[in-house]
Amino acid sequence: MATICRPAVSVPEHVITMEQTLDLAREVHADHPQLDLALRLIENTGVKERHIVQPIEETLRHPGFETRNAVYEAEAKRRVPEVIRRALADAELRAQDIDVIIYVSCTGFMMPSLTAWLINRMEFRSDTRQIPIAQLGCAAGGAAVNRAHDFCTAYPTANALIVSCEFCSLCYQPADLGVGNLLSNGLFGDGIAAAVVRGTGGTGITLERNASYLVPDTEDWISYQVRATGFHFQLDKRVPGTMEPLAPALKEIAGQHGWDAAQLDFYIIHAGGPRILDDLSKFLGVAPEAFRFSRATLTEYGNIASAVVLDALRRMFDDGGAHEAATGMLAGFGPGITAEMSLGRWSR
Amino acid sequence: MATICRPAVSVPEHVITMEQTLDLAREVHADHPQLDLALRLIENTGVKERHIVQPIEETLRHPGFETRNAVYEAEAKRRVPEVIRRALADAELRAQDIDVIIYVSCTGFMMPSLTAWLINRMEFRSDTRQIPIAQLGCAAGGAAVNRAHDFCTAYPTANALIVSCEFCSLCYQPADLGVGNLLSNGLFGDGIAAAVVRGTGGTGITLERNASYLVPDTEDWISYQVRATGFHFQLDKRVPGTMEPLAPALKEIAGQHGWDAAQLDFYIIHAGGPRILDDLSKFLGVAPEAFRFSRATLTEYGNIASAVVLDALRRMFDDGGAHEAATGMLAGFGPGITAEMSLGRWSR
Repeated sequence: MATICRPAVSVPEHVITMEQTLDLAREVHADHPQLDLALRLIENTGVKERHIVQPIEETLRHPGFETRNAVYEAEAKRRVPEVIRRALADAELRAQDIDVIIYVSCTGFMMPSLTAWLINRMEFRSDTRQIPIAQLGCAAGGAAVNRAHDFCTAYPTANALIVSCEFCSLCYQPADLGVGNLLSNGLFGDGIAAAVVRGTGGTGITLERNASYLVPDTEDWISYQVRATGFHFQLDKRVPGTMEPLAPALKEIAGQHGWDAAQLDFYIIHAGGPRILDDLSKFLGVAPEAFRFSRATLTEYGNIASAVVLDALRRMFDDGGAHEAATGMLAGFGPGITAEMSLGRWSR
Repeated sequence: MATICRPAVSVPEHVITMEQTLDLAREVHADHPQLDLALRLIENTGVKERHIVQPIEETLRHPGFETRNAVYEAEAKRRVPEVIRRALADAELRAQDIDVIIYVSCTGFMMPSLTAWLINRMEFRSDTRQIPIAQLGCAAGGAAVNRAHDFCTAYPTANALIVSCEFCSLCYQPADLGVGNLLSNGLFGDGIAAAVVRGTGGTGITLERNASYLVPDTEDWISYQVRATGFHFQLDKRVPGTMEPLAPALKEIAGQHGWDAAQLDFYIIHAGGPRILDDLSKFLGVAPEAFRFSRATLTEYGNIASAVVLDALRRMFDDGGAHEAATGMLAGFGPGITAEMSLGRWSR
């Protein structure tokens, strides 16, 4: 039985508060015709603080895609190993015990993936499998958990390491002035998370079932435009309403497992934005309080993309976890629009 | 038992011959100080023809990363579905029977991945899993086979669809003038391949074991530089010598399986270049003829990146396959330097 152990999380040292974000928006976009709407949308996110890899003055400059991507690589190499070391220690494993590294990140692009550098630098075995995923966006956190679960199902004594490295601030595009872009500039934050999925043993969520769901014909609702200036995030205004078509998929996977999605003991949900969490609690019929870990991630770190679900799970660990065999759901949402869902029981 | 069925392959209609390539190199790089060396290296590839998605005049222009990537997306959408349809028909399955799509491509970048579009347009189920991989380069063909094998090991009645879409000509960088770049400009071709891995039934290679191997400290031997002009392929001159450190890994996986890597009935090997195939036959101690399918792919299509192993396997099917239970190896090589290796038996 595959068990996802305590995630380790790190956020960068540079902090930007909601007030600073609003002030910046007023300053930079003083004559934007929809400034008031953008400010209101940013305020509604409830994101109190975000952490970013560079000081805000640097972040607001666009030095070109090449330099940006070089910053991504340098900062990832500087920050990721320490997070992995903590995740391994929390799972009581060494690097040599890991059979596959699933590295998810949509905010920088490297070939080879950082996995090759990590294997060389951190004493992973040379036969460690590499699964780098750059194209699932925020859903990649849930996808990584699910692919790790699948891998441990195929090889019951294997161990998988999940790494999520998201520097959303490196995708800031000063020339993108749509309201969706202004909102995104106030919503996304940077963060790194890592967690081990142990094939045997471990404390955390013992994974029992996973599934994916693609909301039909929504593939252009969340997307990157790829340009000379890098990745340009495009957010359709219909996205916040996605929980209505997605909630039935969450209910269905629970039903297939003989569980009631409204009656689980815990929920680790991607905090794409406040409306995602509000709507999902409504459509699933669970109290808003059930999503408190995800809400805390959103408030304190912003939407840190694929790292959200791992950070929310880390908060649940910090909160003492749950009782033995407590039932729960983990779900990531992202471009596609794709949901990556998982069911499991708490194992102490 | 997971069986990889007959791959379907398609190459574009625009053809460039070795002679045309050499003439172009002489014309474009007339005053290059190492032109003679570059011409000799290109001649040594043995690549007689390559197929490219645009006429050569278009290919030689660089219209910018944004336009290039838009061409990638348009051509992928235009060409991939037909190849998938043939792969499904050859596996005697419908789109609805597929549980996971593993889409590998390093020559264009989309988020969401083409998988979302394919699911929407081709009647795949909404719960089809998506595993898009962009960062394993040429090794991704082998990786896709291995991840499909793992998935069917976890879910024995599942079916995986592998799609490889490589338009290497869209990564041509006219300003890159290193000898390695000039060689690459004469080596890589475009191609699309798809194959189904059936959890039960099927004719082809029944997969028994897979493994990865990263050659230590070679992560910058094959890489992309990411720039405003797109992905710039960088090839270290030590790469053609990689089979010496890689051959022992191929011998080891065979040994773990109780097989002798020198005595298998068939070999499906990534044809990175002629030296890769020559050296590997030497270091494994097998006759050059054993790699005839890979050699044919290289000669007729060039190095079509992650699609090479699927095309070589398609040629083996066209040749009548092998006798029941014939033993064989499939191996992809790429950046990392990573080998993705697989062992199986022919199943008629």
